Amino acid sequence: MIVGGGFAGLAAARALRRAPVRVTIVDRRNHHLFQPLLYQVATAALNPGDIAYPIRSVLRSQANARTLLARVSQIDLATRTVRLADGELTFDHLVLATGATHSYFGNDAWEAWAPGLKTIEDALEVRRRVLSAFEAAERQSDATQRAATLTFVVVGGGPTGVELAGALSEIGRLTVAKDFRTFDPRRLRVVLVEGLDRVLPPYAPQLSAAAKRQLEALGVEVRTSSRVTKIDASGVWLGDEHIDARTVLWAAGVAASPLAKALGVPLDRAGRVLVSPDLSVPGHPNVFVAGDLMHFEQDGGQVPGVAPAAIQSGRAAARNVWLAVTGRATQPFRYRDKGSLATIGRAKAVGQIGRWRFTGFFAWWVWWIVHIAYLIGFRNRLSVMMGWAWQYFAFSRGARLITGRAWEPATAAPPPPRNDRPAP
Amino acid sequence: MIVGGGFAGLAAARALRRAPVRVTIVDRRNHHLFQPLLYQVATAALNPGDIAYPIRSVLRSQANARTLLARVSQIDLATRTVRLADGELTFDHLVLATGATHSYFGNDAWEAWAPGLKTIEDALEVRRRVLSAFEAAERQSDATQRAATLTFVVVGGGPTGVELAGALSEIGRLTVAKDFRTFDPRRLRVVLVEGLDRVLPPYAPQLSAAAKRQLEALGVEVRTSSRVTKIDASGVWLGDEHIDARTVLWAAGVAASPLAKALGVPLDRAGRVLVSPDLSVPGHPNVFVAGDLMHFEQDGGQVPGVAPAAIQSGRAAARNVWLAVTGRATQPFRYRDKGSLATIGRAKAVGQIGRWRFTGFFAWWVWWIVHIAYLIGFRNRLSVMMGWAWQYFAFSRGARLITGRAWEPATAAPPPPRNDRPAP
Repeated sequence: MIVGGGFAGLAAARALRRAPVRVTIVDRRNHHLFQPLLYQVATAALNPGDIAYPIRSVLRSQANARTLLARVSQIDLATRTVRLADGELTFDHLVLATGATHSYFGNDAWEAWAPGLKTIEDALEVRRRVLSAFEAAERQSDATQRAATLTFVVVGGGPTGVELAGALSEIGRLTVAKDFRTFDPRRLRVVLVEGLDRVLPPYAPQLSAAAKRQLEALGVEVRTSSRVTKIDASGVWLGDEHIDARTVLWAAGVAASPLAKALGVPLDRAGRVLVSPDLSVPGHPNVFVAGDLMHFEQDGGQVPGVAPAAIQSGRAAARNVWLAVTGRATQPFRYRDKGSLATIGRAKAVGQIGRWRFTGFFAWWVWWIVHIAYLIGFRNRLSVMMGWAWQYFAFSRGARLITGRAWEPATAAPPPPRNDRPAP
Repeated sequence: MIVGGGFAGLAAARALRRAPVRVTIVDRRNHHLFQPLLYQVATAALNPGDIAYPIRSVLRSQANARTLLARVSQIDLATRTVRLADGELTFDHLVLATGATHSYFGNDAWEAWAPGLKTIEDALEVRRRVLSAFEAAERQSDATQRAATLTFVVVGGGPTGVELAGALSEIGRLTVAKDFRTFDPRRLRVVLVEGLDRVLPPYAPQLSAAAKRQLEALGVEVRTSSRVTKIDASGVWLGDEHIDARTVLWAAGVAASPLAKALGVPLDRAGRVLVSPDLSVPGHPNVFVAGDLMHFEQDGGQVPGVAPAAIQSGRAAARNVWLAVTGRATQPFRYRDKGSLATIGRAKAVGQIGRWRFTGFFAWWVWWIVHIAYLIGFRNRLSVMMGWAWQYFAFSRGARLITGRAWEPATAAPPPPRNDRPAP
C-alpha cells in the first residue's frame, strides 16, 4: 500500500510495475500535482489542468496497481490497517508519502492574511487575491490606500518565494501594464522577506547574490535577515517596522503531514519521520517513508524537500519493499544531488549542477527544458510550452481569471473560512 | 455605462470604440465567459482559462473605455445613478446586459442536489461531482448503490442538456473506460429528461429526432414529455417514477438577473425587461437593455437567449445610444437568425441555417469551426483546438481535476453552502 500520490508515492508505484505484488495507491486528491510549477498557476501563467494529472490515468496501464480516492485518518502498524473516513484497508507493506505543507511557526491566525502555496486551491486563492488587488486599485482614489493595495509582501526567500516575487513584479510591469486607466501598474511594490542573511539559502552564496541582483533588476525589494513578527489586515510587521500591504503571500516554513504522528514513532521538529538508512520506520521493517515526510541525514546534512529527492526515495522505498517481500536484505538509500534550479522571471534564473554554477538566460533555458521534460503527460507538456511561449513573446498571461468572489483587500474582517480546503 | 461584460455588454462597448463618448463597463466578474463552451469545462475537456478572458484585456486598446470590477446592487433611473456595494456611479446613458441564470421554477431547494451551469464555479462544481462519482464507484461493492452512483440525470433537453448528456456518456464510454479496476465505467447510465415532447424544442422537428437518435447511439436514455416533480439525495422523481441517481445536473429554466427588478418597469414572467422596438426601456429613452435580459418579440416569437442575439442586440443598443447622444432618432432592432448548432458528442451534432438542416459529422465540423472562430483571444483558440484535437484522437480529456473536496454522492446531508458563489 502506498499512501500519497505525489512524486514519491507515484515513483514507488511505478517502480513496482513489474513486480508480482498488488499495489494500492491511496490519495485524498484525484490528481498528482507538479508542485514546482504551482506558482505559475498562482501567477496566472498556467491553468490548473496544465500541471495536474489524474493519478488513475498515470497508472491506467499498470495492471497490478489500483487507485483509490480516499482520506486516510489513522494508521495502525500493529494490525497493519489503514483507517479511512469511511472504511479501512489492510496492508502487508506500507510506503507512506503524504508529504509536507507550509507552517506558520505556531501563528496559524496568519494564514487568513497570508495564504501559502501547496495545493491547486491555494494557487487559485493566491491568483484571486493578486488579480483582485489590481482591480481594487483601479477604483481607489486615496493615494495611501492605493499604495497599500499595490504592495505585495512575499514571506520566505526559498525557491517558491523568489519565483513568486519575480512573477508578481512581472505581472505589474509587463502583463497588466496597459490595462488600467487610473494608475500605473508598473508602480507596484513587491517586498521579499527572508529571515536568513540571503535568499535561496541552500544554494551557493554567489547564486544567492545573483538571484538578489536579478530580483532587484525586476524592482523587487529584497529584505534579508528580517523576521516577520506579525501579520494582520493592515500588512506585515518586521519588528517595529510596518509594511502597509493588502496582499501577503506565505512561502516559508515546512510542517510534515499530520499522518506522521499516527505512526507513533520518533519525529523531528517539523514532524517528519526519522527513518532508518533503508527508509524503513525503526522497529517496523515493513513500513517505509519517502519524500518530504522523511527526515534523512546524509553527509552531515538533511536531504532537501525537493522533487528529485522525493522521486529517488520513492523508488528506493519500493525497491526495499520488493527485497523484503522476497526475503532479501534491504539496501540503504543514497540521495544523488543532480543540481538545483530556481527561476526568477523572464530569462532570469540561477542554477547549480555539482560545482558548476550558472545564471541568467542560460539558467532560465535549462530550467525550462528540465521542467517540461519532467511534466507528466504529453498533452500537458504541449499546453505548458504554448502557455510559456505566449507569455514570453506576447508579455501576456493566459489564465487571468478571478474565480470565486473577488478578494476585497480593503476589508478589515478576516476572509470567510474556505470550505473547499480539504482537512489536513 | 454598460452593466455586464457578457456577449451583449462587450459587443456594446466595442461598438462604441470610435465614438467620442466615455464608456464604463461594470461587471462583478473580471472575465468575459464564452458560455457556449461552459459544458466542456464541466465535462473536463477544457480548462477554465480556455473559455474565459479578462474583460479588461479585451478593452485594453480601446482608449475611451474603462473596466470596473464591481457589484451593482441598485439602479436609480430618476437620478441616473448605479449603486455599488461600495460606492456609486452616475451615467448619462445606460446599457443593462446582466443576462440570465437558471431557474428551479420555485423549487430552490433542488439546487443543492442538481447544480446548474452558468458560471465557471458552476462548471467546476459539476466536474467535481461527475469525476467524484466514478471515484466513489470504485470503492462500492453493493451493486444497487454502485448503480445509483453511476446514474447521471440531466434535467432539460435544450442545447446545454443535450451537450451535457452526450459528454457524460462519452466520459464513461471513452475517457475513463480503462481507468477503473472494480467496475466497467461503460456501464454508466445517463438519463436526459425533457418536459416537452422532443429534445432541442427550438429546432426543426427532424433535427430533434436526429439528436435523439444520436444521443441513443451514445447510450443516453432520452425521456421526453417527462416532468421532474422532486429532486433530493436519493435522485429524481418523474411523478410516481423514481430514478435512483447520485448525480443530477440542471439544464432547464431561465430566470433573468434580479437587477431587472431594480428598474421598476414591466417584466415578463421570467423577469426579463419588456423593451421598446429600439431596445430602450419604455419611458426611459436613455436606458437600453440587451442580451438575455431583454424580452423582445419579433415575427410572433421571442428572440432566443443565444450568443448571436446577445451580440446583435448589444451592438444595436450601442448604436441607439450614439443616435440618442447626437440627437437623432433611434432605430428599431431586428434579430437576424444566422442559424443554430448543437453538438452531441464525438462527430455528432445537428444544425440549421435558414431552411438548410444538417446532422452528423458535417454538423459537428461546422460547430467546431464556428465556436473556435468566435472565441476571443488567439491563445485561447489555440489552446482549445489543441484540447479538442487531443480529446478526439486520444479519447482523453485534459482537465480531469477534482478541485475542492471530492463530492461524496452517497451522503444524505445536503452539501455545504458554497461561499465562493457570488450573490446574484
